[in-house]
Amino acid sequence: MTILLKIWSGWVNNMVSAVEKGGEAEAEPESDLSYFFEPRSVAIIGALREGWFGGYVIIKNLRLFGFPGEIYPVNPRYDKVLGLDVYASIKDVPATVDLVIIITPAATVPGILEECGDASVRAAIVVSDGFAERSEEGAKLQEELVGIGRREGVRILGPNTVGVTNTANGLVTTPYEFGYSSIRRGYVALAGQTGIIAPQAVPYEDLQYGVSKICDFGNKCDVDETDLLEYLAEDAETKVIAMYLEGIKDGRRFLATAKRVVKRKPVIVLKSGRSEEGARVASSHTGTLAGDDRIYEAAFRQVGVLRVRNFRELFEIPKIFGQPRPKGNRIAIITMTGGAGVMSTDVAYECSLELARFSEKTIGELEKIFPSLAKNPSDVGPAMFAGDLVQIYKKTIEAALEDENVDCVSVVLWTGEAAPPQLYVELFNELKEKASKPIAIWIYGTKVTAVHELSRELEKLDFPVFLDFETAVRALGMLCEYSRLQGDA
Amino acid sequence: MTILLKIWSGWVNNMVSAVEKGGEAEAEPESDLSYFFEPRSVAIIGALREGWFGGYVIIKNLRLFGFPGEIYPVNPRYDKVLGLDVYASIKDVPATVDLVIIITPAATVPGILEECGDASVRAAIVVSDGFAERSEEGAKLQEELVGIGRREGVRILGPNTVGVTNTANGLVTTPYEFGYSSIRRGYVALAGQTGIIAPQAVPYEDLQYGVSKICDFGNKCDVDETDLLEYLAEDAETKVIAMYLEGIKDGRRFLATAKRVVKRKPVIVLKSGRSEEGARVASSHTGTLAGDDRIYEAAFRQVGVLRVRNFRELFEIPKIFGQPRPKGNRIAIITMTGGAGVMSTDVAYECSLELARFSEKTIGELEKIFPSLAKNPSDVGPAMFAGDLVQIYKKTIEAALEDENVDCVSVVLWTGEAAPPQLYVELFNELKEKASKPIAIWIYGTKVTAVHELSRELEKLDFPVFLDFETAVRALGMLCEYSRLQGDA
Repeated sequence: MTILLKIWSGWVNNMVSAVEKGGEAEAEPESDLSYFFEPRSVAIIGALREGWFGGYVIIKNLRLFGFPGEIYPVNPRYDKVLGLDVYASIKDVPATVDLVIIITPAATVPGILEECGDASVRAAIVVSDGFAERSEEGAKLQEELVGIGRREGVRILGPNTVGVTNTANGLVTTPYEFGYSSIRRGYVALAGQTGIIAPQAVPYEDLQYGVSKICDFGNKCDVDETDLLEYLAEDAETKVIAMYLEGIKDGRRFLATAKRVVKRKPVIVLKSGRSEEGARVASSHTGTLAGDDRIYEAAFRQVGVLRVRNFRELFEIPKIFGQPRPKGNRIAIITMTGGAGVMSTDVAYECSLELARFSEKTIGELEKIFPSLAKNPSDVGPAMFAGDLVQIYKKTIEAALEDENVDCVSVVLWTGEAAPPQLYVELFNELKEKASKPIAIWIYGTKVTAVHELSRELEKLDFPVFLDFETAVRALGMLCEYSRLQGDA
Repeated sequence: MTILLKIWSGWVNNMVSAVEKGGEAEAEPESDLSYFFEPRSVAIIGALREGWFGGYVIIKNLRLFGFPGEIYPVNPRYDKVLGLDVYASIKDVPATVDLVIIITPAATVPGILEECGDASVRAAIVVSDGFAERSEEGAKLQEELVGIGRREGVRILGPNTVGVTNTANGLVTTPYEFGYSSIRRGYVALAGQTGIIAPQAVPYEDLQYGVSKICDFGNKCDVDETDLLEYLAEDAETKVIAMYLEGIKDGRRFLATAKRVVKRKPVIVLKSGRSEEGARVASSHTGTLAGDDRIYEAAFRQVGVLRVRNFRELFEIPKIFGQPRPKGNRIAIITMTGGAGVMSTDVAYECSLELARFSEKTIGELEKIFPSLAKNPSDVGPAMFAGDLVQIYKKTIEAALEDENVDCVSVVLWTGEAAPPQLYVELFNELKEKASKPIAIWIYGTKVTAVHELSRELEKLDFPVFLDFETAVRALGMLCEYSRLQGDA
């Protein structure tokens, strides 16, 4: 085992030193992705039949989400769709198009891309599937696309992708009808070799999850994770980048770029294909080579990429990065159930947080309310009858926030008959003005809807709510780790 | 490290061999807990003030949940409550009481328990807090309780507990108003040194989670995890036992008992106090000594106790044990998103499952519908347009269930415009008759309520739905591990 470890660490060192010597040059942006996210005009080429999937729906979604640019449907068999003139070919569109979305049978895509090149289109999202993920033949077709794109100067996202979302301009290219029409504008950029992060898969509106950009790489024949990293590094809306990756196209370039980007904003990665079988499946999913997981693990660590362990974490943990940066790793755990306090403590230590020792002042103040509050974890449960429950929460959270020995706070909220959601919303509305330390919340209670409603309202106030208390604590751990790596803490 | 490992394994072997030699005698039931779960009559001693907490609410809850036994409120300051005569003391109750629930200030509990002994009460749930979890003085009071209980032949659950739930007879002793009045009668017994598993903390009705018994040990001064294990082993309603433990009172006795019980039904344990700080906090939560985690880890493994890693798993994984027992460890993954397929494969391998290789017959049948279905993971996504989505799911799930190379199935369901919840309910209604292999489900979609509704309906049909696909796969892994340990697989 020791020998294996040495071999890995050798590989990693080679990889990272290659990055440091020669990698920077290669890591220069090859081209700007702004045409994908900030196009002035979009053409939708292909399926315009009314239904819940296809180009027809893309046009509907662009309008629903308020995309202000020009929209040009292209299909030789239609005249009008949704009140818009339909053009027989991209060449007939009477203006230069920044972004095309192609949703036609795979075999027709190369020809269409060629025409796009002729029409000076700069960016193409290829929704169509049936490429490298399907067959040998599809793989050849995909290579053909890459060749045409390079020759014609058209960057390609996909194929086999649902495309992008930009909450700043209402650009939602998802070809599915998904039944809601707003995504909260926020600071998390989500990307992946999967549509599972896109609006047809996630109840973004219901969750009030704040998004800056979403990008499904699909088969990643051209635009890849490193291109996107470069783009998102410059994107003022994005404070944190979360990526699901099955493989990395150019490991050296990715690591060199990530190393620069993490100094400005955190990069969180969920890398699958950890098992041999997983790697094999990844290859048939998006035609990616997964690579040796142990090398990635070590390389990520060395350049400061934060790695998460499952999809839930990839989705939830980025939310914590909207919170103030902690100055250290000392956590105050405020709970309503002693059990969650003990379990949270275990998780805290597993992710290098320490239990804060409350100052004499805090202890004095909280003792006066109820003894169980004056220790850490601070247990609101036994104090329930010492006054109004929500007020006790308020005083305890405020005391923890003001304590110089506390760097971050996790809060377990219980909502039930004695503590209706609305009272907590008022409390956090007040706290919002004062909180200069990160807070992570878990809510439990007797009604699914009450828990969900409260969660939604607190998210609107920019307090991150997690689906379990372990993830809440782990998110704080990752925030502290990032701060430590950046030298803040 | 090797030396440490040897030391641990020495400890564990000593522990287990002690168990095997002399432990069995000690592991005999000290007394039956049936008075706690199946009392013919219950007295509630203490707080009867109208409100959302206390003895008043216990009486309301017992009635709401349909407890058929006699209920005797006891409090010298009341005459009548909720139409019932109130007795000044337990001695005045004109019948023998099987179970008392004491909810009075800590200092008064010993005297009351003494009176209960005189009145031939056999079981007491002490809801009151302020004992070993609070102070030295409280710890002494708790010792006093233990002494009285032993002398008088009264078994004690608690103190500092919300008590028990038995869905077979409507016995719900939770002293909180929690806003619902039914818990689905099922096969999972949940126990813990925490109220976090009790009805005031979990939306049992909303989830349609099937429960047999719930037990909060509280400070565990008398009735402990081993007593409960013995009781639940014999309980015909309980198919699987899940316990959150901060410490184990008598490790040898617990292991000896568990070793016997796991042959009849699985025992799943979440043990906290893994970190030193967690152990310290556990001690101040319920006055428990957590013990060395590494010893527990090894000992659990040796006697066949299944260990989970977090509270979510403790709560969710037991649900899988209502499914048919698998004959092997070969999983079919049916997904709607390739990404979830890759990630599920990783988790499958991490918990010793193998990807099933579909038979020629299955491959032939599924190829005919769409090529992406004929491999494992089987991807319904690209096949969406080959017919009605829910019908494609149906054919794929059925083919996997009928394939002799498949032992268990995980299903990722997407609900959205193209696939409303009701169609899936019909599908699983049909599958219910046929399924002779375990199925674990994850549902995702664009509306929180739609996902929740579908989950509820499938749970009612006894198909377990998990909050993430990783936990769904891990649950199947644990089911297969249990079958392997029992020699089924």
